[in-house]
Amino acid sequence: MKQIMLTISYDGTHYYGWQKQDGLPTIQAELEKACKRLFGHEVSIKGSGRTDAGVHARGQCASLKVNTPIPVEKMPRSLNNILPKDIVVLDAKLVGEGFHPQYLAKKKTYIYKVINSKYPVPQLWNYTYFVYTPLDIEAMSQGARHFVGTHDFKAFCSSKNTKKDTIRSIYSFKIKQDGDIITFEVCGNGFLHNMVRIMVGTLIEVGKGDMKPDDIRQIILSKNRLKAGITVPASGLTMYRVEY
Amino acid sequence: MKQIMLTISYDGTHYYGWQKQDGLPTIQAELEKACKRLFGHEVSIKGSGRTDAGVHARGQCASLKVNTPIPVEKMPRSLNNILPKDIVVLDAKLVGEGFHPQYLAKKKTYIYKVINSKYPVPQLWNYTYFVYTPLDIEAMSQGARHFVGTHDFKAFCSSKNTKKDTIRSIYSFKIKQDGDIITFEVCGNGFLHNMVRIMVGTLIEVGKGDMKPDDIRQIILSKNRLKAGITVPASGLTMYRVEY
Repeated sequence: MKQIMLTISYDGTHYYGWQKQDGLPTIQAELEKACKRLFGHEVSIKGSGRTDAGVHARGQCASLKVNTPIPVEKMPRSLNNILPKDIVVLDAKLVGEGFHPQYLAKKKTYIYKVINSKYPVPQLWNYTYFVYTPLDIEAMSQGARHFVGTHDFKAFCSSKNTKKDTIRSIYSFKIKQDGDIITFEVCGNGFLHNMVRIMVGTLIEVGKGDMKPDDIRQIILSKNRLKAGITVPASGLTMYRVEY
Repeated sequence: MKQIMLTISYDGTHYYGWQKQDGLPTIQAELEKACKRLFGHEVSIKGSGRTDAGVHARGQCASLKVNTPIPVEKMPRSLNNILPKDIVVLDAKLVGEGFHPQYLAKKKTYIYKVINSKYPVPQLWNYTYFVYTPLDIEAMSQGARHFVGTHDFKAFCSSKNTKKDTIRSIYSFKIKQDGDIITFEVCGNGFLHNMVRIMVGTLIEVGKGDMKPDDIRQIILSKNRLKAGITVPASGLTMYRVEY
């Protein structure tokens, strides 16, 4: 058996997220189906982390064990010929037997896109979050600096979070503006359920002037989900990169 | 009755084009339905030109006559509250009684987006055309210069073209690259059916090295559709701007 790591890009709009669920279309299920067809045996795929319904990926990583004479460099194109067109394998490589895409991930980067304009852009509904109120980029950038470091992010995870340990390290949090599009880019050692979406939702409160940049620090310390902002929609979120 | 000009943006993915067709979802039909609900009477909407199924718009212009006390500056938001979310009215203004959005258009600008990379980008399927072979931007720009000017574009229109006069003026044709995305921007006094898509399809042949830039001149002179390249897919095309 060879252990393979795949890098995968997908449009999450029409899927119920990464993880297999009985009878529902998910990314993991589509990949396992395509692998079974290509390799001729059942394949179990492990992802670097789950993505929720409607969340996209540019660099999701996943591993699988296969018994096949197909050379690894031919796998992306062969899988893409079978997969639905909103899932694209960008890379495949051989990895050691001990590789685990979730436990060995050192850094993960997510991006979140907001369209900040008078009217929405119809082509971007599934890929951005539309905010009408003008946002103060400088204030949001100041607020974002409070996230950087090692903190207990209990205030920034959904009530569905099942992880006991809510301490995570954020390495960087950048906010860029290009015309009407604002991109939030956050890199850390791991993220709790809905953590990126709640962090962005809170920064948007800062951007609107409804919170001050330094309030972020108090919210982190409070460990109280109710103090933070809304969970912004899944559509704006992309799992951008996983580093090992 | 007031005569109003609307500027409209839409995602054409889920529509059978601009023009009303019995029982099929079209942009014109959705706009007329929304106007009827807002203004309380039947409204007939004239566009600056048709767009085919799957083609998008950022600045389609259209006119309508209404009998309403609603101030014109409130109309975009009121219509957007009724319209499906993939159609957005960006502007409404009062125009003179003699205004005609098609006959009085002086310049139209279309953009066409190509994604030129090893693998497609799943989020961009409905908004770009994916080309695997690396394209030579300089050669395509040289080829595009031959389109500028007043020519008989018979070789660059579909067999469904119903217009007798196939002479059009192209004012500019620019090609820009931003990472993997190549944007073709063409401005002219009007376009024949499929003209932009066939011009881009022919330039892509030049970009691949299958035609020379100067071949474009010969194809124009031939007036023969069979000499030109393919009609590239509707998904990459956006009606960008109409000037009066």
